[in-house]
Amino acid sequence: MKGIILVMDGMGGRPLKEFNNQTTLQAAKTPNMDKMAERGITGLMDPIAPGIIPGSDTAHLSILGYNPYEVYTGRGPFEASGVGVDVIPGDIAFRCNFSTSDEDGIITDRRAGRIRDGTDEIVATLNTMKIEGYEDIQIIFKESTGHRAVLVLRGEGLSGKVSDADPKVEGNKAKEVKALDASPEAEKTADILNKLVAKSYEMIKDHPVNLKRIEEGEAPANIIIPRGAGEVPEVELINDKYEVNSACIAETGLIMGIGRFAGMDIIEMEGVTGGTDTNLENIRDTIIDQVNNSEHDFLLINIDGADEAGHDGDAKEKLKFIEKVDEVVMKEVLKLENSYIFLTADHSTPISVKNHSGDPVPVLINGPEVRVDDVCEYNEYAVAKGGLCRIRGADVMNILTDLMGYAHKFGA
Amino acid sequence: MKGIILVMDGMGGRPLKEFNNQTTLQAAKTPNMDKMAERGITGLMDPIAPGIIPGSDTAHLSILGYNPYEVYTGRGPFEASGVGVDVIPGDIAFRCNFSTSDEDGIITDRRAGRIRDGTDEIVATLNTMKIEGYEDIQIIFKESTGHRAVLVLRGEGLSGKVSDADPKVEGNKAKEVKALDASPEAEKTADILNKLVAKSYEMIKDHPVNLKRIEEGEAPANIIIPRGAGEVPEVELINDKYEVNSACIAETGLIMGIGRFAGMDIIEMEGVTGGTDTNLENIRDTIIDQVNNSEHDFLLINIDGADEAGHDGDAKEKLKFIEKVDEVVMKEVLKLENSYIFLTADHSTPISVKNHSGDPVPVLINGPEVRVDDVCEYNEYAVAKGGLCRIRGADVMNILTDLMGYAHKFGA
Repeated sequence: MKGIILVMDGMGGRPLKEFNNQTTLQAAKTPNMDKMAERGITGLMDPIAPGIIPGSDTAHLSILGYNPYEVYTGRGPFEASGVGVDVIPGDIAFRCNFSTSDEDGIITDRRAGRIRDGTDEIVATLNTMKIEGYEDIQIIFKESTGHRAVLVLRGEGLSGKVSDADPKVEGNKAKEVKALDASPEAEKTADILNKLVAKSYEMIKDHPVNLKRIEEGEAPANIIIPRGAGEVPEVELINDKYEVNSACIAETGLIMGIGRFAGMDIIEMEGVTGGTDTNLENIRDTIIDQVNNSEHDFLLINIDGADEAGHDGDAKEKLKFIEKVDEVVMKEVLKLENSYIFLTADHSTPISVKNHSGDPVPVLINGPEVRVDDVCEYNEYAVAKGGLCRIRGADVMNILTDLMGYAHKFGA
Repeated sequence: MKGIILVMDGMGGRPLKEFNNQTTLQAAKTPNMDKMAERGITGLMDPIAPGIIPGSDTAHLSILGYNPYEVYTGRGPFEASGVGVDVIPGDIAFRCNFSTSDEDGIITDRRAGRIRDGTDEIVATLNTMKIEGYEDIQIIFKESTGHRAVLVLRGEGLSGKVSDADPKVEGNKAKEVKALDASPEAEKTADILNKLVAKSYEMIKDHPVNLKRIEEGEAPANIIIPRGAGEVPEVELINDKYEVNSACIAETGLIMGIGRFAGMDIIEMEGVTGGTDTNLENIRDTIIDQVNNSEHDFLLINIDGADEAGHDGDAKEKLKFIEKVDEVVMKEVLKLENSYIFLTADHSTPISVKNHSGDPVPVLINGPEVRVDDVCEYNEYAVAKGGLCRIRGADVMNILTDLMGYAHKFGA
């Protein structure tokens, strides 16, 4: 028996005038998801708790059985994990921007002219950095997309309780990083960060990539600005906690980072973009292949496009994408046998809000032994009358592993 | 966008034979609340948790986002706040009775002949009290209604872990106050209390108010009997926590005390009694005025009469009052625009119980972007099929501030 959590990122919504007070999901024609609702048990889910606005990262942590209030100490660790740095408990991780500094330290462009190429070469140089007096601290940079990068500090006596260097507004110097508590660890980490920012400029201002950019009239990526410090927490890996052999099928670094953090195998896919133009056929084939031909018995799947359309406030695009997923992916997913399928969203991304909201999301479970209710449509309204009533993200793994026969009795 | 929590105190109930097994709310004709149900999303709410019988104070704390198990250390602090003492974290507060003692210290009347007038003058005398050996401890008395008063001890090294002086049964001496744990703070506080009780008799036995009462054959209010010790907790004020500008519109000191505790502005009203004879027109006008003409963007409103009728076991009176609120208040409330309105009760007060019960209460939310469900009546039965399913008091502020657009995303 396999267990599948299929997360349609940001699929939930609020009633829309242009859809006659229906949500996008309600207005969309989704015969396959409706079929799954008919065959399954349905309900509402608060990814974290009622009214709490989840990030995609905190929602996925919650759905995987981690308490985000305990493990989510900052974006840095998950961002670092997302771009493939094998972080270990105790690491202090940061999100960084490549920015442009003038000779006086004034940040003239926070995004270094939205640099797209060559950051890997600059990172190669930065990864030779040692800070005087802190030679035992390992410094790991890794480029992400565009002007983004991550930084990991590894070693003894560090703390995630430090402020951001990001000046937020251009025309200012990088902010001095400060300790956010009175611990010597925070003081030490702040000192390292301040030296690191200054040193990054010295090391990369004349980097060949930057000399070429200057020649071509582009802003050079000549300084590193860290923010979002967080300590990598010690957690029980999902395979140990739930006795599964798990894999993560996702489009974005953010979700892959959550999967890697939980110790899941990450399945790479070609042609996926995280947008509405993604290659859904590839996602579908990867799911089918993993269910039928792999040893993984637990899959976390994230399809991101509906969230992107929600952030863009584009109701038609969101509707179209939901319909396309229904047609391309769900049509095949509903044929899977020997599986429990938990279909949900990680949060609502209402068109009107253009961002996540705290509204609950629809859930359904298909599988041989669920208590099938009489709900026959998959949307925010219909499932509110379903047999699951209203559950939380933290309940998902327990419900799923119980149905799969993997869970253990607590007590006699 | 404004947010309004309107609490009908004790409105929930249980089925009644005399109403053909309907609850009072169900039997009442409430066309305006039904209209609000039709336009809104509905559900059930456990103010604290299923089956837990809330006080009005603990329920309101929970609805305002405070964990009553953490902050509700005893009634003293909230009673003190309710009568207008500006308590500060660390204060130890008590409820007190003015009682009547004979020369041997025997309490002959716990309520001092239900004294109504002159307690303010006695309190003026008591407020000059200093206890030998504890001169650094500030002693604050404040009269409440009738024979009731509050006492606040302010200073270093005090504790709320002390027993009551109230003998409960007349014909006994005031009980010796004892430390309830082994801390020196509790020992010190108990010692102060015992000296304070004795001293109160010495200070006020010959007070002019009492001499006059004795002359008129009334029991003198010649001793102070404290009970319900509690330490004033340190909490985040609601305006800071939820980034609102809040006000409390309430009839009773108990609820005003909760509002004051949370840092809300307290809106005074004329002619309100906390009973079924209250001036509902004034309450209505105050609400409308606050919504339309004040800078407050978040209002907590409490209307108390249904609870009083419930405590009296008077089904007809409770029904009549609910209908009157519907006609006088709700008819105008449902016309408010640019507002999210959260209508609920703080607990059930069933006629049969003549006290609070742990039954869940009905809730509804009106406002521009709620997921309107198909429930068209506002009562305990109809809303059980609503789109909110079953929520808790602790969820209310999160849900409301999310809808208002005031909440922040947790994560990315």
